Amino acid sequence: MILHDFLPSGNGYKIRLTCAKLGLNYELKEYDITQGETHTEAFLALNQNGKIPCLELDDGHCLSESNAILLYLAETRHSELLPSDPLQKAEVYKWLFWEQYSHEPNIASVRFWLTHNAMTELKEQMLPERIQQGQAALKLMDDQLSKQDFLVGDNLTLADICLFAYSHVAEEGGAYQLSDYPHVQRWIKVIQAQSWYIPITYNPSVS
Amino acid sequence: MILHDFLPSGNGYKIRLTCAKLGLNYELKEYDITQGETHTEAFLALNQNGKIPCLELDDGHCLSESNAILLYLAETRHSELLPSDPLQKAEVYKWLFWEQYSHEPNIASVRFWLTHNAMTELKEQMLPERIQQGQAALKLMDDQLSKQDFLVGDNLTLADICLFAYSHVAEEGGAYQLSDYPHVQRWIKVIQAQSWYIPITYNPSVS
Ligand SMILES: N[C@@H](CCC(=O)N[C@@H](CS)C(=O)NCC(=O)O)C(=O)O
Ligand SMILES: N[C@@H](CCC(=O)N[C@@H](CS)C(=O)NCC(=O)O)C(=O)O
Repeated sequence: MILHDFLPSGNGYKIRLTCAKLGLNYELKEYDITQGETHTEAFLALNQNGKIPCLELDDGHCLSESNAILLYLAETRHSELLPSDPLQKAEVYKWLFWEQYSHEPNIASVRFWLTHNAMTELKEQMLPERIQQGQAALKLMDDQLSKQDFLVGDNLTLADICLFAYSHVAEEGGAYQLSDYPHVQRWIKVIQAQSWYIPITYNPSVS
Repeated sequence: MILHDFLPSGNGYKIRLTCAKLGLNYELKEYDITQGETHTEAFLALNQNGKIPCLELDDGHCLSESNAILLYLAETRHSELLPSDPLQKAEVYKWLFWEQYSHEPNIASVRFWLTHNAMTELKEQMLPERIQQGQAALKLMDDQLSKQDFLVGDNLTLADICLFAYSHVAEEGGAYQLSDYPHVQRWIKVIQAQSWYIPITYNPSVS
């Protein structure tokens, strides 16, 4: 498999973490999204949507949308990262969609704007509302993690991997303070202590 | 089952359409989201995230995130709305996540702002970029539908139901013109011609 990716991307990192957990090998192909490298004709043939990550399978088929790729990998590998109980599975789905709608646009986008010099006057004005919504998202996770060890049930699932990706770097750029969310902090440490853990900057081609 | 919903919501409508297709009965409980009715203590006990739709099952368990509910319903009813082939399934997942990330915030939110008198000075400034991204989303669907009858494979799937919900009302508010997307227009008519079709304003409690 070839993972078309950009190392600082949490969306890509979700897939790299899942592959690490499942023991899957892949080649990493990097694109500098700040230079428009995902909008070339060659890239658009892989993903018409012009965004990393996408996962090119050995048969040439190319999958996109990070959370769809997580579901594909866990399902085809029959991994317990995706519980078989329909209600627990629906909870995993819930967190994956919630991440794309209520977490990523507030936490990942704000981090990107602030760390990649991507602020504009309009983004400056959008910032307070985004940060408020990002704080609400971290609070909602913190409430859930005050009641249980992982987001769904008693074991680590795709929901944890997905939400870990941008939560653990939420402080980058300075908009969020993780010490406001002690249960999230505890859960981050638990994930970082897993034997298969790799940091967001890990590059399989270099190691 | 009880569907906690707001009739003009396309996110709720996805579930009502899926229930219509699958022949599932449910009670509809309406909330006026413009009056904050999803932020009461009683509602937050159903969905901590304070948003409709949520589907309360007969055992009291309450599911949220519209697209997670679609997956739950199709899976537990073994419906061909969710193909069993892993690659086709991954394509359905892809469209569902893409809808939440690249379609809904541009098409649904803009429609809501413009039809519910929810414009602010900041939203006014955000509008051009949102509309540009919404046009790109409709164009991407149009390209796909120029090549095939439905979004995934040869048959109607959850991807079509999910994307239909806000695409078919994209013109409300005046930001989008569906005549710019003839393949989307053709596909809308095909879905509206299904025997189980119900309009977005359909209320099962009233019929
Ligand atoms: N919903 C997509 C979002 C992917 C995304 O936003 N990718 C960003 C980097 S994290 C990108 O490629 N941006 C480049 C561009 O849009 O030009 C997913 O979950 O995969
Ligand atoms: N990602 C959620 C979005 C749900 C959503 O945005 N619901 C809106 C109506 S369409 C809502 O309840 N808004 C009320 C509020 O946020 O106070 C889903 O797909 O279910």
